[in-house]
Amino acid sequence: MVKLNHHYSKLAGGYLFPEMERRVAAFRTKHPDAPIVDLGIGDVKEPLCPSIISALEKASRELGSPETFKGYGPAQGYPFLREAIAKGDYGSLGISPDEIFISDGAKNDIGNFQEIFAVENRVAIPDPTYPVYIDTNVMAGRTRLPLKTGGYGGIIYLPCTEENNFLPQLPNRPCDLIYLCSPSNPTGTAMTRETLQMWVRYAKENEAVILFDGAYEAYVRSPHAVRSIYEIPGAKEVAVEFRSFSKTAGFTGLRCSYCVVPHSLKIVESYQSFSLHALWKRRQETKFGGVAYPIQRAAAAIYSEQGKKEVKAFIDDILDRAKRLRDGLSALGYRVFGGTDAPYLWVKTPGKMSSWEFFDQLLEQHYLVSVPGSGFGTEGEGYVRFSAFSEASKMTEALNRLEMVAQ
Amino acid sequence: MVKLNHHYSKLAGGYLFPEMERRVAAFRTKHPDAPIVDLGIGDVKEPLCPSIISALEKASRELGSPETFKGYGPAQGYPFLREAIAKGDYGSLGISPDEIFISDGAKNDIGNFQEIFAVENRVAIPDPTYPVYIDTNVMAGRTRLPLKTGGYGGIIYLPCTEENNFLPQLPNRPCDLIYLCSPSNPTGTAMTRETLQMWVRYAKENEAVILFDGAYEAYVRSPHAVRSIYEIPGAKEVAVEFRSFSKTAGFTGLRCSYCVVPHSLKIVESYQSFSLHALWKRRQETKFGGVAYPIQRAAAAIYSEQGKKEVKAFIDDILDRAKRLRDGLSALGYRVFGGTDAPYLWVKTPGKMSSWEFFDQLLEQHYLVSVPGSGFGTEGEGYVRFSAFSEASKMTEALNRLEMVAQ
Repeated sequence: MVKLNHHYSKLAGGYLFPEMERRVAAFRTKHPDAPIVDLGIGDVKEPLCPSIISALEKASRELGSPETFKGYGPAQGYPFLREAIAKGDYGSLGISPDEIFISDGAKNDIGNFQEIFAVENRVAIPDPTYPVYIDTNVMAGRTRLPLKTGGYGGIIYLPCTEENNFLPQLPNRPCDLIYLCSPSNPTGTAMTRETLQMWVRYAKENEAVILFDGAYEAYVRSPHAVRSIYEIPGAKEVAVEFRSFSKTAGFTGLRCSYCVVPHSLKIVESYQSFSLHALWKRRQETKFGGVAYPIQRAAAAIYSEQGKKEVKAFIDDILDRAKRLRDGLSALGYRVFGGTDAPYLWVKTPGKMSSWEFFDQLLEQHYLVSVPGSGFGTEGEGYVRFSAFSEASKMTEALNRLEMVAQ
Repeated sequence: MVKLNHHYSKLAGGYLFPEMERRVAAFRTKHPDAPIVDLGIGDVKEPLCPSIISALEKASRELGSPETFKGYGPAQGYPFLREAIAKGDYGSLGISPDEIFISDGAKNDIGNFQEIFAVENRVAIPDPTYPVYIDTNVMAGRTRLPLKTGGYGGIIYLPCTEENNFLPQLPNRPCDLIYLCSPSNPTGTAMTRETLQMWVRYAKENEAVILFDGAYEAYVRSPHAVRSIYEIPGAKEVAVEFRSFSKTAGFTGLRCSYCVVPHSLKIVESYQSFSLHALWKRRQETKFGGVAYPIQRAAAAIYSEQGKKEVKAFIDDILDRAKRLRDGLSALGYRVFGGTDAPYLWVKTPGKMSSWEFFDQLLEQHYLVSVPGSGFGTEGEGYVRFSAFSEASKMTEALNRLEMVAQ
């Protein structure tokens, strides 16, 4: 008799975003004419830059001609893209193209990467956090049941609160696999050099591995914030870095991302040294077939001179909106965090409302969509996430409505 | 201290294809001018059909315009493609678009699908087989160490030999998860209705689940062979079907496939009924971000009137080559199987040579690349796989050289 992976039944409720979509859809059905402004959106709205589209079209045509047709590509990604990334994103940090793995989404990569580690590892995850870190570890059996107080037994939560400036601190229990996200989804906070140094030191001393999610790296503008964990000496021996073209260049509909697994990342077990790079390579060769050729060409276009300019303008524009939203909210008396090195703003609910209460009020009375902070973890309760991906033209309208809430 | 997934260390040697590539590359370095003919290739060589390219280009342009831009799509795939598949591939079999999941490779899907089952399940896999079924179960911990006699302890191998017409028979031990592949990679044999009826009955009686790999379904021409497992009454309660556009329409470089998980596939545990569809959906929503929009549009073009014609011509052409190769080899006295309902021919090595011996002889003396059958399992020893994906213009040359071997 076939048996199911019973860890799936531990998963608490639905994934945050489907539940939000359900509530918004129900509201739309009831009020089809309500002029909803979506400040919750974690997706880009702007069309792709001309140089990306042009590379995509050209590569598409190549597949139609016998001279330029491409079949299976390398599971790790084409050298032309890995070389562009190594040079363009890691120039002075000394990451080689062979240490880069192209994939079809940072979510997929981060979700899959835990597979190459034993079930017994103790996992540390920031709270609030991107739910995928948690859910994929639940599915793999690294947790116990959900707790009544929120979260899962067996996970070491790293509270990110106003008191610690939303920077995860070392836990009082040992941990083996550490998820860090900077700039953070959802708090919009970029990690400082000091905090990351502390984590790299911890990982070295305790033979732990850091899974560093840098999906929003392109939004970092503060001089004290770190863009890559490899800026920290020693990080190449303890950290894997994940990045995405989704929020950098609007690739949410194209699906392209990459991760860096340095050759110097070795795990010693029973006096033997194992290369994490070799394990991940084997995993990808067995379960992944690489990213479509035209999409890798489109991603490579980001690193051309013209592509760089276009993409920078795209990000600057989102950061401008984040600033407008942040300034507007602050002026209205909201407590606002993030939004300077990230497209996300982390906003305290007024009057000690719960996240879902504020979400429902914003939706039902003011036709505004937010993301309830409690969906990102226990410490997210009492916050909502706003996003600067929403249309620029609707920011003023959104602020006008938020003023009514504040009054 | 972090611990690795120690099941990875059970994996015996390299994955078949990297090892072959290594030997061929070494030969090329030594003999750069040798006119190699690749009969081993499991990849398409022909450019994509015009209607597919045109859909790909059009959808690429859509992403460059604010009116038609697409961000995140549904993890399960766009309805337009799922509807086209339900109608075009399953018309009278009654599969609904909601039962179809689009993904970026049948290899990925089949490799990932085992995740939603418990580690304790007893897995039955044909021998010879596509190595991914085995390796992904090794990685998940469903096997013991590799055996000296070949294979892994803990897997129930289903021998497919000349004696049983390469059709997997019921094992003498109970099994829970059953991998079937028809037409088979590597033997090129399509399963008969009787054999599949036997397996569906077994699965129903023993509460087992069949993972049916139909990646080469489009090559089926024999009237007695089955194209979809859902042609067998009752299969919707026990079987998941995997299909791919790779070998159907030349999508190896574009990455698009799908699987069917019927709503009626329920697993009963502790008096509770669980839907496999719901589990897989949750898995995909958590670890997968959907397939790129332009690629889904390209796949949908296969179902247009023009697309259907072009794709049929592509497959007919490959089957013509398979026939030429099969007839030529038979005339030369080789024992040949497959090649009538599949792009693959399964050829007995002459003079009781081992697979790798024949592989090396073909490469070094005749500049022909084959795939050693033993790479597909113990029962593959003494065979090589030839493929009709090789260029039509080189078939005569290949047969001339094979004549020299036969003499």
